Amino acid sequence: MSFRIGSGIDFHQFAEGRDLWIGGIRVPHHKGALGHSDADVLLHAICDALLGALSLGDIGVHFPNNDPRYKDIDSKILLKETVGLIAERGYSVVNVDSTLCLQEPKIKKFVPAMQETIAAILEVTSADVSIKATTTEEMGAIGREEGLMAMATVLLQKK
Amino acid sequence: MSFRIGSGIDFHQFAEGRDLWIGGIRVPHHKGALGHSDADVLLHAICDALLGALSLGDIGVHFPNNDPRYKDIDSKILLKETVGLIAERGYSVVNVDSTLCLQEPKIKKFVPAMQETIAAILEVTSADVSIKATTTEEMGAIGREEGLMAMATVLLQKK
Amino acid sequence: MSFRIGSGIDFHQFAEGRDLWIGGIRVPHHKGALGHSDADVLLHAICDALLGALSLGDIGVHFPNNDPRYKDIDSKILLKETVGLIAERGYSVVNVDSTLCLQEPKIKKFVPAMQETIAAILEVTSADVSIKATTTEEMGAIGREEGLMAMATVLLQKK
Ligand SMILES: [Zn+2]
Ligand SMILES: [Zn+2]
Ligand SMILES: [Zn+2]
Repeated sequence: MSFRIGSGIDFHQFAEGRDLWIGGIRVPHHKGALGHSDADVLLHAICDALLGALSLGDIGVHFPNNDPRYKDIDSKILLKETVGLIAERGYSVVNVDSTLCLQEPKIKKFVPAMQETIAAILEVTSADVSIKATTTEEMGAIGREEGLMAMATVLLQKK
Repeated sequence: MSFRIGSGIDFHQFAEGRDLWIGGIRVPHHKGALGHSDADVLLHAICDALLGALSLGDIGVHFPNNDPRYKDIDSKILLKETVGLIAERGYSVVNVDSTLCLQEPKIKKFVPAMQETIAAILEVTSADVSIKATTTEEMGAIGREEGLMAMATVLLQKK
Repeated sequence: MSFRIGSGIDFHQFAEGRDLWIGGIRVPHHKGALGHSDADVLLHAICDALLGALSLGDIGVHFPNNDPRYKDIDSKILLKETVGLIAERGYSVVNVDSTLCLQEPKIKKFVPAMQETIAAILEVTSADVSIKATTTEEMGAIGREEGLMAMATVLLQKK
């Protein structure tokens, strides 16, 4: 059996007048995430982990943030394209584990919907997509609610 | 053979008048870590990595920081409960790797005791529990000694 | 088949009058990375991930930053020594995934040379060494260009 591991990390600033997309779900909040795409920090971290596991470059290489095709794009589309690149090479996802670092809002009640959304794209079950959350205990830029961060690790296996 | 990976990250502020628990060991220091439990940043990161590997939620879901049962609790108890959840599902730990990010104090001489303590709870040998440490080179909140951070990755296998 | 995972994280400040070594390559920039060695943040994160996977301590234990032998040393030498420790124990690298967090400079065009350099030392192919990059979206110390960070995850297997 042939395995590969990948890891990703992504950051976005919070900004007024933007929606907050996390894990493919719109989370109600008075601020959203700033970015060229929909700025979904969790989907971006997972994309990067998948790309990294097979050494396919990073999300900035595949979906440049100055390319008008990706302006305000739904990051679920980027994740689906990424999964296609993995499948082409004969790999599938064993499991994904991820952590969101943000002070506010609480995302716990949205996690099941995020898991289902991501699992459907990755062609795994919800139980293979873990989404955890933590604050930075009010420390640093994330603690000051300037923005948020997501980290993801993935295990792939050759089909 | 069936494998799963997990990753965890945790943060705590330093505060006067608290003990500093790291990896299940009390580390002598003029400040301790602030939190509802004993605020053991390393054990929390490992709990989260274990939970994440099997998509069982996060430490905040299992041990809420507003639940009086967990007030000042020894995080070794939380880790033991977490290991129980893993074992129930037929999984055991292959290895844990972790890194502490903190400016002070130096924790090197406490690492063997931390490894033994954690290994006993995880039912592995000390050589299967890695604990590394780094500073942030005086950068950011951790560099200013406002607090500390721990990251952990785990590999599980189905027994 | 016996597998192990490891993860590493490293930080360095930027400073005038220093070269910027990343992934074994000198990257042209008006500032370099400060450190006792050549301060190659990516090679250090990979060393720590390799050491962590086999619970061999951390880079500070093996190559102390107050040891004159390591003053201004090329971190490729440290990586080679680390790989030797892994090989002695009968393990080889399956794959490495890494992410650089830095605001400036753009490192994309240097990535292939970094991959080749690291792959040669790890005795794997370039396709087994992933190097990704992201900014922190101008947040925090790294966003203010005070320094840079690298994270790495590795999968090892017993030969
Ligand atoms: Zn992003
Ligand atoms: Zn904690
Ligand atoms: Zn370093």
